[in-house]
Amino acid sequence: MSTPSSSAEVSMETIVALCKRRGFIFQSSEIYGGLNGFFDYGPLGVELKKNIRDCWWNDMVRRREDIVGIESSIIMHPKVWEASGHVAGFTDPLVDCKVSKQRFRADQLFFSPVVIDGKTAGYVSALESENTAAELQAAAETFKRKKALQGALAPVEPRDMTEARPEEIPQIPSPATGEPGSLTPPRAFNMMFETYVGALRDASAVAYLRPETAQGMFVDFKNVVDTGRVKLPFGIAQTGKSFRNEITPRNFIFRSREFEQMEMEYFIHEDADWEKCHKEWIEWCRRWLISIGLPESHLSLYDHPKAKLAFYSRGTTDIMYKYPFGVQELWGIAARGAYDLTQHANASGKPQEIFDEATRKKFVPHVIEPAVGVDRIFLAVLCSAYAEEQVADEKGKAETRTVLRLSPRIAPVKVAVLPLLKNKEHLVARAQELYKKVKRKYTAFYDESGAIGRRYRRQDEIGTPWCVTIDFDTIEKDGTFTLRDRDTMQQKRISEPELFAMLDEQVW
Amino acid sequence: MSTPSSSAEVSMETIVALCKRRGFIFQSSEIYGGLNGFFDYGPLGVELKKNIRDCWWNDMVRRREDIVGIESSIIMHPKVWEASGHVAGFTDPLVDCKVSKQRFRADQLFFSPVVIDGKTAGYVSALESENTAAELQAAAETFKRKKALQGALAPVEPRDMTEARPEEIPQIPSPATGEPGSLTPPRAFNMMFETYVGALRDASAVAYLRPETAQGMFVDFKNVVDTGRVKLPFGIAQTGKSFRNEITPRNFIFRSREFEQMEMEYFIHEDADWEKCHKEWIEWCRRWLISIGLPESHLSLYDHPKAKLAFYSRGTTDIMYKYPFGVQELWGIAARGAYDLTQHANASGKPQEIFDEATRKKFVPHVIEPAVGVDRIFLAVLCSAYAEEQVADEKGKAETRTVLRLSPRIAPVKVAVLPLLKNKEHLVARAQELYKKVKRKYTAFYDESGAIGRRYRRQDEIGTPWCVTIDFDTIEKDGTFTLRDRDTMQQKRISEPELFAMLDEQVW
Repeated sequence: MSTPSSSAEVSMETIVALCKRRGFIFQSSEIYGGLNGFFDYGPLGVELKKNIRDCWWNDMVRRREDIVGIESSIIMHPKVWEASGHVAGFTDPLVDCKVSKQRFRADQLFFSPVVIDGKTAGYVSALESENTAAELQAAAETFKRKKALQGALAPVEPRDMTEARPEEIPQIPSPATGEPGSLTPPRAFNMMFETYVGALRDASAVAYLRPETAQGMFVDFKNVVDTGRVKLPFGIAQTGKSFRNEITPRNFIFRSREFEQMEMEYFIHEDADWEKCHKEWIEWCRRWLISIGLPESHLSLYDHPKAKLAFYSRGTTDIMYKYPFGVQELWGIAARGAYDLTQHANASGKPQEIFDEATRKKFVPHVIEPAVGVDRIFLAVLCSAYAEEQVADEKGKAETRTVLRLSPRIAPVKVAVLPLLKNKEHLVARAQELYKKVKRKYTAFYDESGAIGRRYRRQDEIGTPWCVTIDFDTIEKDGTFTLRDRDTMQQKRISEPELFAMLDEQVW
Repeated sequence: MSTPSSSAEVSMETIVALCKRRGFIFQSSEIYGGLNGFFDYGPLGVELKKNIRDCWWNDMVRRREDIVGIESSIIMHPKVWEASGHVAGFTDPLVDCKVSKQRFRADQLFFSPVVIDGKTAGYVSALESENTAAELQAAAETFKRKKALQGALAPVEPRDMTEARPEEIPQIPSPATGEPGSLTPPRAFNMMFETYVGALRDASAVAYLRPETAQGMFVDFKNVVDTGRVKLPFGIAQTGKSFRNEITPRNFIFRSREFEQMEMEYFIHEDADWEKCHKEWIEWCRRWLISIGLPESHLSLYDHPKAKLAFYSRGTTDIMYKYPFGVQELWGIAARGAYDLTQHANASGKPQEIFDEATRKKFVPHVIEPAVGVDRIFLAVLCSAYAEEQVADEKGKAETRTVLRLSPRIAPVKVAVLPLLKNKEHLVARAQELYKKVKRKYTAFYDESGAIGRRYRRQDEIGTPWCVTIDFDTIEKDGTFTLRDRDTMQQKRISEPELFAMLDEQVW
């Protein structure tokens, strides 16, 4: 009946267009030309996002016995960020182009010498892409032709600007102008947004928008231990906005300047088998992503090389997702030892310890941290759910249907309630009655306009798993409705109690 | 059986202490001495807050057919705040004390001349409180005695600093030092937090943390109209953090610098009966507050005097709540005409109109705006729910129980599951089984430690509406449990299906 397209084929353009057309995501402040790196969620987007967040909260906090939630403020005491290391070290390497006033991340700006007959004749550059090396090679060939140079052109040797030697920098062309001489050496740019709290505007009033929610869990650790009747191992979780002043926000909502995180700090005994715990959390997170509908085939694991880890880190594994723009980090699971609590104990002078009944000693717990962004899950979910299929319409004619195969758990609308005909009062009345009943607990949509096939298509495009049609049989026979399934497009009769039992089973 | 105390008797000290003791609210960054005007929600607080937010979302958005949700970014284009009038006018009058470096809100700093035998002998001042006039009178008497002045002291005439004449200001004592001469004339202090977006730090990069969520609805208005299949009258709602750099944050979470709003813009036809619509929304909001448990007797209405309204405003009514520190604004319902959309149309050059099928003309819709803060509801709910009662314990001895009479809809824990004895394996097993089942959809707490009476008290103090005890009858007879009601403390037998039916009816 249908020929599903592979979700890997979906382009970002298609997803961005769908998001705007159906009200999932808008550019922030669009009527003022937008603001780079900021996005708004529209009527359907806010429901999908809320469902992702609520699923995570239910599974991570409410349904578990060992994890509690908190909600810490976005603006915290600036000493928090000194202790955590963010004031000193939360930086990206920034390169300015003095002519164009544009800015680039040094690790995303690649260059190569143009080597002809073994001698460096100049340099070419390109911004990071799927084909950086090929672009540099083409640029080198253009360089040789334009300068009318003779001899054998060596293959390019791409390096990024963080690896440039001081004497090379003046020779590397700016991607903005194509000419060398305007790029500055990389400098450390702190990504925390700064503001001032209170009426003063001096150093004592500086505060930061949090770049991660995690520090809230560490700073509130003792308060939670003292009030929450928790015992090791246990976790503290929160969801909320974080802010990073990215030099080059990109890939739609994948890397934005304002985003929402779902983080959890899982505290374990200092002698516990952290590798086992780390592995368990990686698997928990992977399973959870699959449970909300991400295809297992698009997920992979990436272990950060030991040599690149911070000194305190035991290990970090990222769950990677195959986005249309490449395989990228979705969920990082880090084993951070006792680093954060120890830092805060030292900086605040307040011990961050737990008393061990067995050994009668105090110690600082170690931590495993699974950290994920709601917006990245949102994007992965949309990309994997999107499909265009060739199907037969009601008259048997071939047509293309767009369908979002969203899991019922996160679909923005769970049920569409449709009276077969809008000019039949008893059909409309029964449909309205059912619609109101469903809406009490589930998001529902009522639609009476247009042919039933067209109404199904509208729901397919926004990912509504089920359409319920009230027809003449509903009124004249046994009260059952037609239930139409989004994915199979199969229809069957269903009673009201059966409908609610199905929702109860599949939506929670 | 019990003697309820009136909630009006609760002191803020009691509420603040409960919040810290049981993990509802902590001071932000407490281990670093806190940050004035910022708070964290602990394990129970985050659940209560989430429930308030979700109840509002369900009732305001999901269960209605005429309202859709959005989630706009906290940092928006700075032109949004120019058009809205916030850059020019979102200010508080600020008075500096040049000696102490303290800052005061001019409208909260009261003063009076000290008049003796008809002549002004000096000035006294006091910060706004429940008894400002009495404090000023006492200060005047002290002034007279200390200066050893003779004659008849006239009653004080309290005015605030915004009404001080220039020649009076040098004579008004600073509340910080008690001496005159150090206070500055009031100046307009903009309450928006500023930051810089991007790597530049100049005027072109300035952006603001939103001081309200409402402008998101206006800026996204056309996008929602174009994608959402909405027709007048309809509303756009959102919940989210807002930030105001208050000069003097106070009354715990009532006036903080970071807070969460729940706002809705209800768009109506330019010729619609706005007064009727305004009244309907006031009543809807009042009813909603009662539905989540606030006592009707503590609610009142305050109509802003016409003379004090902004020129575009048709009328604003506040729903007031009787807090322990006085009757204060809880929910403002404003009739704002077409002001906001018109401002954004003019500033952006993009018409913000709707086409009227009836008259075949375009027009800018008018708006009714109910705006409330989650934190203020949270505080009102805690204050009204709190009670200390004299009750008889299990042996008939009098004791005091602390109880939070929270509505089941918002209580952080819905059900506590308790095995009668923790050393009886079959009781524990059945309790664990039920606990896991309840937890799938409802927040639940499992507790097996201590006498059953003590376990009830612990749940009373956090507002858990129901305790379910698994006892020998559960295992040996018909499988029913003991259901104990928080408010009446009555117990009855209940079966598992009855328990779930009750939860389904009362929690949603």
